[in-house]
Amino acid sequence: MAGSTFGTIFKISTWGESHGKGVGVVIDGCPAGLALSEEDIQKFLDRRKPGQSKYSTPRTESDQVEILSGTFDGKTTGTPISLIVRNENQKSKDYSEIASYYRPGHADYTFDAKYGFRDYRGGGRSSGRETIGRVAAGAVASKILNEMGIRLLTYTKSIGPVSIDENRFNEREISANPLYMPDASAAAAAQEYLNQCMADQDSSGGIVECVITGMPAGIGETVFDKLDSSLAKAVFSIGAVKGFEIGSGFEAASMKGSENNDAFITENGRIAKATNHAGGILGGMSDGSPIVFRAAIKPTPSIARPQHTVKRDGTPVEISIKGRHDPIIVPRAVVVVESMAALTILDLLMLNMSARIENLKNFYEP
Amino acid sequence: MAGSTFGTIFKISTWGESHGKGVGVVIDGCPAGLALSEEDIQKFLDRRKPGQSKYSTPRTESDQVEILSGTFDGKTTGTPISLIVRNENQKSKDYSEIASYYRPGHADYTFDAKYGFRDYRGGGRSSGRETIGRVAAGAVASKILNEMGIRLLTYTKSIGPVSIDENRFNEREISANPLYMPDASAAAAAQEYLNQCMADQDSSGGIVECVITGMPAGIGETVFDKLDSSLAKAVFSIGAVKGFEIGSGFEAASMKGSENNDAFITENGRIAKATNHAGGILGGMSDGSPIVFRAAIKPTPSIARPQHTVKRDGTPVEISIKGRHDPIIVPRAVVVVESMAALTILDLLMLNMSARIENLKNFYEP
Amino acid sequence: MAGSTFGTIFKISTWGESHGKGVGVVIDGCPAGLALSEEDIQKFLDRRKPGQSKYSTPRTESDQVEILSGTFDGKTTGTPISLIVRNENQKSKDYSEIASYYRPGHADYTFDAKYGFRDYRGGGRSSGRETIGRVAAGAVASKILNEMGIRLLTYTKSIGPVSIDENRFNEREISANPLYMPDASAAAAAQEYLNQCMADQDSSGGIVECVITGMPAGIGETVFDKLDSSLAKAVFSIGAVKGFEIGSGFEAASMKGSENNDAFITENGRIAKATNHAGGILGGMSDGSPIVFRAAIKPTPSIARPQHTVKRDGTPVEISIKGRHDPIIVPRAVVVVESMAALTILDLLMLNMSARIENLKNFYEP
Amino acid sequence: MAGSTFGTIFKISTWGESHGKGVGVVIDGCPAGLALSEEDIQKFLDRRKPGQSKYSTPRTESDQVEILSGTFDGKTTGTPISLIVRNENQKSKDYSEIASYYRPGHADYTFDAKYGFRDYRGGGRSSGRETIGRVAAGAVASKILNEMGIRLLTYTKSIGPVSIDENRFNEREISANPLYMPDASAAAAAQEYLNQCMADQDSSGGIVECVITGMPAGIGETVFDKLDSSLAKAVFSIGAVKGFEIGSGFEAASMKGSENNDAFITENGRIAKATNHAGGILGGMSDGSPIVFRAAIKPTPSIARPQHTVKRDGTPVEISIKGRHDPIIVPRAVVVVESMAALTILDLLMLNMSARIENLKNFYEP
Repeated sequence: MAGSTFGTIFKISTWGESHGKGVGVVIDGCPAGLALSEEDIQKFLDRRKPGQSKYSTPRTESDQVEILSGTFDGKTTGTPISLIVRNENQKSKDYSEIASYYRPGHADYTFDAKYGFRDYRGGGRSSGRETIGRVAAGAVASKILNEMGIRLLTYTKSIGPVSIDENRFNEREISANPLYMPDASAAAAAQEYLNQCMADQDSSGGIVECVITGMPAGIGETVFDKLDSSLAKAVFSIGAVKGFEIGSGFEAASMKGSENNDAFITENGRIAKATNHAGGILGGMSDGSPIVFRAAIKPTPSIARPQHTVKRDGTPVEISIKGRHDPIIVPRAVVVVESMAALTILDLLMLNMSARIENLKNFYEP
Repeated sequence: MAGSTFGTIFKISTWGESHGKGVGVVIDGCPAGLALSEEDIQKFLDRRKPGQSKYSTPRTESDQVEILSGTFDGKTTGTPISLIVRNENQKSKDYSEIASYYRPGHADYTFDAKYGFRDYRGGGRSSGRETIGRVAAGAVASKILNEMGIRLLTYTKSIGPVSIDENRFNEREISANPLYMPDASAAAAAQEYLNQCMADQDSSGGIVECVITGMPAGIGETVFDKLDSSLAKAVFSIGAVKGFEIGSGFEAASMKGSENNDAFITENGRIAKATNHAGGILGGMSDGSPIVFRAAIKPTPSIARPQHTVKRDGTPVEISIKGRHDPIIVPRAVVVVESMAALTILDLLMLNMSARIENLKNFYEP
Repeated sequence: MAGSTFGTIFKISTWGESHGKGVGVVIDGCPAGLALSEEDIQKFLDRRKPGQSKYSTPRTESDQVEILSGTFDGKTTGTPISLIVRNENQKSKDYSEIASYYRPGHADYTFDAKYGFRDYRGGGRSSGRETIGRVAAGAVASKILNEMGIRLLTYTKSIGPVSIDENRFNEREISANPLYMPDASAAAAAQEYLNQCMADQDSSGGIVECVITGMPAGIGETVFDKLDSSLAKAVFSIGAVKGFEIGSGFEAASMKGSENNDAFITENGRIAKATNHAGGILGGMSDGSPIVFRAAIKPTPSIARPQHTVKRDGTPVEISIKGRHDPIIVPRAVVVVESMAALTILDLLMLNMSARIENLKNFYEP
Repeated sequence: MAGSTFGTIFKISTWGESHGKGVGVVIDGCPAGLALSEEDIQKFLDRRKPGQSKYSTPRTESDQVEILSGTFDGKTTGTPISLIVRNENQKSKDYSEIASYYRPGHADYTFDAKYGFRDYRGGGRSSGRETIGRVAAGAVASKILNEMGIRLLTYTKSIGPVSIDENRFNEREISANPLYMPDASAAAAAQEYLNQCMADQDSSGGIVECVITGMPAGIGETVFDKLDSSLAKAVFSIGAVKGFEIGSGFEAASMKGSENNDAFITENGRIAKATNHAGGILGGMSDGSPIVFRAAIKPTPSIARPQHTVKRDGTPVEISIKGRHDPIIVPRAVVVVESMAALTILDLLMLNMSARIENLKNFYEP
């Protein structure tokens, strides 16, 4: 089935494997007239590029994007935008060992179960490189949103047991440390924690948080394609995500209505909310407050310390995964989460344009 | 936009409001040859019916389903199955007060923001009655899954601060208490907690857990339409859900790879996992272990105690919501969560049938 | 698969069989704020109702529509509109004979081939009554189009060998004769022809033509979802359609470029075309000229004269189809064709709203 | 909107313009395990390549395809297949003249109307080069169909006034003449006709016919996604198509039921039809007879003889289109029609696999 396609109007199709010729995306449904250059996209790709710090894989890839279609004189034409990033550093090493067994926490076994065999080189399609297409498309979606006054701020909220302190929240700090944490002190503690993980040949999980401001109210559809359910799917489709929550999230389960309800108020002549336990979404539609959601990311399954597993025929085997792996993928996942959120809300903004009969009439009035 | 339609092959379209003539669903894509009666569907609807205990709204609705099309001689024909439940107890009370202001935690404001006005009687389309169509369709999906040896077990995991104790887990207890908790002792404590909430004119949230057994490995698509991302969307589309997690979920964020990885083993001649932190899903595909997920449900926003809010024009007002409301919706949400999960996995099972070229050849061999 | 669902934003799901409890449709994605009554829909249904003349089946059905959801205070709310028409005149006759063999020109054999069995009462889902849902939804789409200044004019162009004469084209005549022909003289000749067909226990085919005026230019998508390809699918999905053409259609195949090209001109200060061989569509998008298309409808396959066929087990048998059948379905198909066209262009008008980046910016500007 | 995406399970997204860097397609949903090489695809592309005879554009393009992803060890892996063909012969000529006016019969005006501007170099996205992605994907679909015993035979049925004679039908002749006509004598006459067109600086239309054998019965969905309506959309989405018909097609409109009905018979122990006016489709599903359809293709709009048109501002201008144009596109369209048909029926074959409950049970039985 067509599982690599996402979106209804702003629709993307990603392709590519870790050790194939490259990875890419086709964006079908991008509006005409957007000024778009390769630099616009490169900025996003650089945020997920490997080798930015010792906390990511040493695989060297320049991840240079090329626009193959869909623009003319520097502007999008309304036709499909095809983007490609060539793989450069796919090692021609011997994969026969990794091909023979199933790595714990990876998709090796399930790929075999579904398709009968798999491209075992570097994880094939289930490699983190699969996200390059998402990020390239997300860069385009984000540029459109920015022009509409909508902004996404995404960062690492916690790594292992180390969480940011809301009182020390400093937006500028996000790009100042390799972990993308908006709290210098937490970032320092997290790096110490990661250093220990690496010394132990182990890895760590963490939490990514995203805050979206500038969203008009009423975006999202009322039953299945709610804004929150759409974000949940988008973010949960990223490889290592194991949990997703909006606003008060799982805490809401132990709260009372009188605690969790947000009172409506009037602020600067507009209707607003006194608090934001809802995370900016009521009844599946944006309520004008910032949208706030979090994704829980599991620890990288590739670890060097010995693990038990089985071969394809079921024979037990003890393995130790060598190679170039991230001890933590959370910092690199930040821009992937942001990209998926941007793609989701742009599509819902487009779909919302025909919500009222007067919108149609005004749009097409002679 | 068409936000009330769900699924690709097994596709449903729900309709209906709290105080309209009824609610219902059209199931398009149900396979032919399934024995199906109104009783099959009624069993599911009865699990979400109001008035089952003092912890749910006293609105009396028999919620009797009628099959309007799609069956012949007691079997599905492959054509659309139209199901209707007539509303019986929509009170003809005066709604002018509720129409004038925005209830905290409800969709009143966002409906107005999107559509310009709203059907304010009993919440209109954002009422819990909207889920009747989901449950009716879920009953059909579940029947098919059961015939394939797949079983969903869903229950209340926690209510407010009261959680079940895994050591006291007792499946038969689920239907023995009004809260659908698989632990009699936790159920008793939760009832006490709810009694206090009700005395305080307040409400409570909780957590629903679902365990799916019998799933073949390899179900789910590898990038955007993963099994977990699809479940996330399906479950998050239910009104009051604020969080969703699979397997170790948010705990994975503070775990190490060596803790969270599940070793593969051989069990009864089949490949299995020694633990199940993955919650039965690896790389977005089922891995043959039980699928385990949880949904966090917020406390019912309708509470009788006074709340601050604004009128449509922004004027502040203090309100107290009278009427027939659930102090907790978690027990009634259990079957809704199960229904959405059933719809999701059935659709993915169907889509998986053409994953291999030999499947096509075998299916159509002359 | 979900073959009874149509449209992307303005999405409909039809249901119902000839001899079930009723037929209907759920419209998901109708904009809010449209004044809509049952009379609006009834007017369309009355155009396809049986028994309007001796040239249609004598089955008596009032085909009264009931709006079950989606409106409030006489206006659409943006939520799904569920429409139902109860079957009244399903005869409780013995169907064992018709169940035993395959009627030539009908879907009996293919239904069995696909699903293993079929609802043989009155053709089941393949009955002409299936189109009631289309027409009910088409009435809603048409009302929206009319408010936008777009008008569809549909009529019978030919019946058997009798075609209208363009020089005698008279719009008012369409509703003045039972065949919906815009030429009184052709209508008279066609009736004579049909009388002879009926005397011969035979049936006739014909051609329906539709002209759409008031369409803005640029509607339709540029590759697969062209305006013409979308219309082709929509119209070809009607039971008896065997051909579809736009503008010069099949004649274009024997024309030269110099004959078929339409020169652009300036007319009343707007760009227009001197001729309209294109039928109002260039490159898959409306060009501002009237859209003109035709559908070829085959003769009703149910005829009383003896025919050869086989039983389910392959045994040859000679049959004579008794019962209530239309000697010609073209006149009743007119409104079905118009409905499918209205549904198609409305959906494309909605999808077009985000074609340019400035549309998004203007729509959402603060 | 996402108009460059086609299919539900076997889904393709094409991209590219006449004078951009290249053209291509992403195939999402191809089953795993198909042996696939670039040669398999090249064979199809060579059938539409320019410069095969004097009746096609002299633009020289090798149209060499490169597989960028989705295969491993020579087999498809189930993940997206990305295919690219680099443009080689995009002339860097001055396009300022062509940019200034609207060519009759082309999409220049409608592109401007929709998007506000256009890539005017060589027609941009509306160039015939857009079909390369379709043909590359069609080659993959056809290979799968062939392995299932399904075969598509496509050829030129007529050019201008010259039609093939059914009595001289000779399949081997199709690839023996540059017009792909299965009748040597008609091919000779057609070439003479075309020579005259070229001498007159004019162009010609024609008809393509496709015959599909080996289709199992029951393929296609019963209401909107009928086999014939799906084929109609697929084929009508090809640039110059103005008409589409199945079986007796437009002739059915002037036939009687007794003439058009096909008697069922028993042949070699299987149920068959004595004639095939239905063109292999009844009730929207394949009936086991060969599927036969025709597409009417308009004459190439680019002609050198002088034509009247307007500039962007409406000023009248007389033009004469220079450059590299096909005097007839019918022969090159043959493989495009075949590709679209292959894509359509493969998708419907996949969707049909879950039509019966026992199919699901058998497929997943433990």
